[in-house]
Amino acid sequence: MVGGVQTEVQAKMLNKIAVFGVGLIGGSFALALKKAGAVAHVVGLDRSAEALARAQQLGIIDSIAASIGEAVQGADLVLLAAPVAQTEAILAAIAPHLQPGTIVTDCGSTKADVVAAARRALGAKIGQFVPGHPIAGRESNGPDAAIDHLFGDKKVVLAPLPENTAQDIERVASAWTQCGAIIHRLGAEQHDLVFAAVSHLPHLLAYALVDDIANKPHADLLFQYAASGFRDFTRIAGSSPEMWRDIALANRENLSSALAAFIGELDRFRRALEREDAPAISSFFESAKRRRDGWSAKGGTNSPE
Amino acid sequence: MVGGVQTEVQAKMLNKIAVFGVGLIGGSFALALKKAGAVAHVVGLDRSAEALARAQQLGIIDSIAASIGEAVQGADLVLLAAPVAQTEAILAAIAPHLQPGTIVTDCGSTKADVVAAARRALGAKIGQFVPGHPIAGRESNGPDAAIDHLFGDKKVVLAPLPENTAQDIERVASAWTQCGAIIHRLGAEQHDLVFAAVSHLPHLLAYALVDDIANKPHADLLFQYAASGFRDFTRIAGSSPEMWRDIALANRENLSSALAAFIGELDRFRRALEREDAPAISSFFESAKRRRDGWSAKGGTNSPE
Repeated sequence: MVGGVQTEVQAKMLNKIAVFGVGLIGGSFALALKKAGAVAHVVGLDRSAEALARAQQLGIIDSIAASIGEAVQGADLVLLAAPVAQTEAILAAIAPHLQPGTIVTDCGSTKADVVAAARRALGAKIGQFVPGHPIAGRESNGPDAAIDHLFGDKKVVLAPLPENTAQDIERVASAWTQCGAIIHRLGAEQHDLVFAAVSHLPHLLAYALVDDIANKPHADLLFQYAASGFRDFTRIAGSSPEMWRDIALANRENLSSALAAFIGELDRFRRALEREDAPAISSFFESAKRRRDGWSAKGGTNSPE
Repeated sequence: MVGGVQTEVQAKMLNKIAVFGVGLIGGSFALALKKAGAVAHVVGLDRSAEALARAQQLGIIDSIAASIGEAVQGADLVLLAAPVAQTEAILAAIAPHLQPGTIVTDCGSTKADVVAAARRALGAKIGQFVPGHPIAGRESNGPDAAIDHLFGDKKVVLAPLPENTAQDIERVASAWTQCGAIIHRLGAEQHDLVFAAVSHLPHLLAYALVDDIANKPHADLLFQYAASGFRDFTRIAGSSPEMWRDIALANRENLSSALAAFIGELDRFRRALEREDAPAISSFFESAKRRRDGWSAKGGTNSPE
């Protein structure tokens, strides 16, 4: 019982955190913890000096790290919120400075590749890395897009490793809970399978739809008539192309399978259309509406566990 | 000049309109004209007696027609806002009662099939039918979903026939303008080609995505993690399955072509993914974002002409 209480006390107040990538996700994490009074000092690192200066100006970070060693030194928690392609290089740079009391977590949209990169980069210190994925975003990026309530009632998926201690997992979970998030757990492989279907494929379809229309000879006429349904459908095609390229490549096997299944579904519909099979077409639209309405009725994105 | 002025006066005030289908679209049209003080009397018809009673209770219609003959008798304008599959039967029932001073227009999401149906049903009176398509909607249906500002700043596409007089086209345009809408003109064939790409295909994809996920063995787990991107993407899959079945069948050739082109686009992406072609994948995401952002910057759905 005493151990439990101590854990809670440790988790409630972080003396120092280091945030790699002070944009939308990293910046919102820092702002949320500050608002909750859950952190004493936030040090920031970023490949962009301009972003760091802006983050300090906005009160997202308290100081700009002079070096990776200085940033990690004495930190309770290190959050990786840089583009996922940089994860292995950052972890490799952190590794020599990583002390036993420091936990590292990440925000990557894929997990199996991050875990593999972390094992290569951290070696024997892998137990200090707790993989994570906050399910939240906005269309805009950078420090100016950061807000203190981005994670309120949003899911954060943790994909703990066998090497993590229960206490370290709990410390990461507690930091996110103080940002207002709801904690879920999935294995890394299961995480990537799920998100290929519910996130990576839909994003890909939105981009593909815009590309498809843009490449038609009468594209300007078509865009002129794109209505609100099209806007909703393609809103997600406004997010970062760099991020989506990295996600698509990192999760390519699951995404390719999800895409093949979806193409099969479209082919079946097309065949029903060509044989004018009204009952098959009805059943397609009706079953989708039933499932979609059922999902919405259960609260959609904010459904409790 | 005198003729022009008279036309405008006629258009500003409609003595009587008949609305077939008193749900979202027909009801909103009646409410908008009433709010603008542009109609003296609205008579309603619907396959549902309950909907008619409710529409009268809500002040959408002033009277319930005892017969089709009574409804059409003396009407300046007849609006067809019933499910599009009923269009030909309604027009055939109207035809014997249609007097020279009355114009008929419709709200169908496809136009070539409606024009063909109207030619069969109206025969020599085809000149009195001005095909139309208001580009507006909500997720809910029925008289209770009707609102007086549904068409505000929304596009209404008119697809006039060679047999229509300029004055009759102008009278229909004027009624919609008084509902707050912006008038566009397209030929029926061109209309169906455009809307296959920007509306029918996106709707189909949204339904297909929900179906695809619902049919997977771990569907419940997947729906649990569907985030806001998925919600936006599939919001349109909440609309009427009956309507979408009819649209898909009515516009099946254009939709099938649009679907084939889109499947080709997905196949190309999948091949790039399988050969881990990062530059091709980058270029795919970047060009889509550029086009999408360009479209949004021009005002998206509400872009002026």
